[in-house]
Amino acid sequence: MVGAKVFKPGEVSESNSSGMPEEFRENQRKRFNRKLADYAGLKNFGVNLIRVIPGGQSSARHAHTKQDEFVYVLEGEFVLVTDSGRQTVGPGACIGFPAGTGDGHHFLNETDRDAIFLVVGDRTPGDEVTYPDIDVELKGGCDGVRKWRHKDGSPYPLKERG
Amino acid sequence: MVGAKVFKPGEVSESNSSGMPEEFRENQRKRFNRKLADYAGLKNFGVNLIRVIPGGQSSARHAHTKQDEFVYVLEGEFVLVTDSGRQTVGPGACIGFPAGTGDGHHFLNETDRDAIFLVVGDRTPGDEVTYPDIDVELKGGCDGVRKWRHKDGSPYPLKERG
Repeated sequence: MVGAKVFKPGEVSESNSSGMPEEFRENQRKRFNRKLADYAGLKNFGVNLIRVIPGGQSSARHAHTKQDEFVYVLEGEFVLVTDSGRQTVGPGACIGFPAGTGDGHHFLNETDRDAIFLVVGDRTPGDEVTYPDIDVELKGGCDGVRKWRHKDGSPYPLKERG
Repeated sequence: MVGAKVFKPGEVSESNSSGMPEEFRENQRKRFNRKLADYAGLKNFGVNLIRVIPGGQSSARHAHTKQDEFVYVLEGEFVLVTDSGRQTVGPGACIGFPAGTGDGHHFLNETDRDAIFLVVGDRTPGDEVTYPDIDVELKGGCDGVRKWRHKDGSPYPLKERG
């Protein structure tokens, strides 16, 4: 179809690579990502299918300054962690994360089977990402370039994504 | 939770109203909409849960000039209609509609039970909506104001949404 791309998530390659600095990548190995909207040729927002295997996390706990996030749980059970504590969410749960609250979030799979959600995020320019629990931020420094930095602003060395 | 709004779709009010000109509203009465991302306080994109009862359609067949759309089918079965024809889609199907193709689309429920999808759309300014099968467009005219217009550019009279 010319104006429509129809597919199943299984057609889209799945990856557990991470763009974070090397010392934080190992914690992401149990999170597998399929970039659905990219696969469909969409540019204005991302829709990813996230599968977290037992013992894994969706991401390091983080907050966006300008980009909203929306999650819809499809399968299994997650523990959502924010500054307010822990909350268990299962299939059909919706979770919205408005930009700019500074309250970091992530999802843990503490069960013995896979858990899956859809996540939507926009691509508002100038977004920065803060991580309350670890010494890393994705933000512009004095040089104005958005990159992975320590909390003192010094950049992490550039290394291949993996 | 301060930085997260957690909820089930059933908490969100459902509506079958339509913002289209009055003569096109009746065809939308079998489509029920829950604005999930709005309910969560998100501003940058919409995520709606669309329930179409037997014999209904998701919308009039339409295309966006600047906004991308992404659909994920949750329950039941739809017939997707585009310029390329008809295609049946069921649970787990993903459909992307890149902006600017001009190829109109909508989803029909030709079964005897409800069918449900999630739809994501961004809010890129200056978007216009074209409808290949009916005499209506949502676009700016010589006065530059985006409104419901006939294909000759003349505006429809303003009437209450219903």
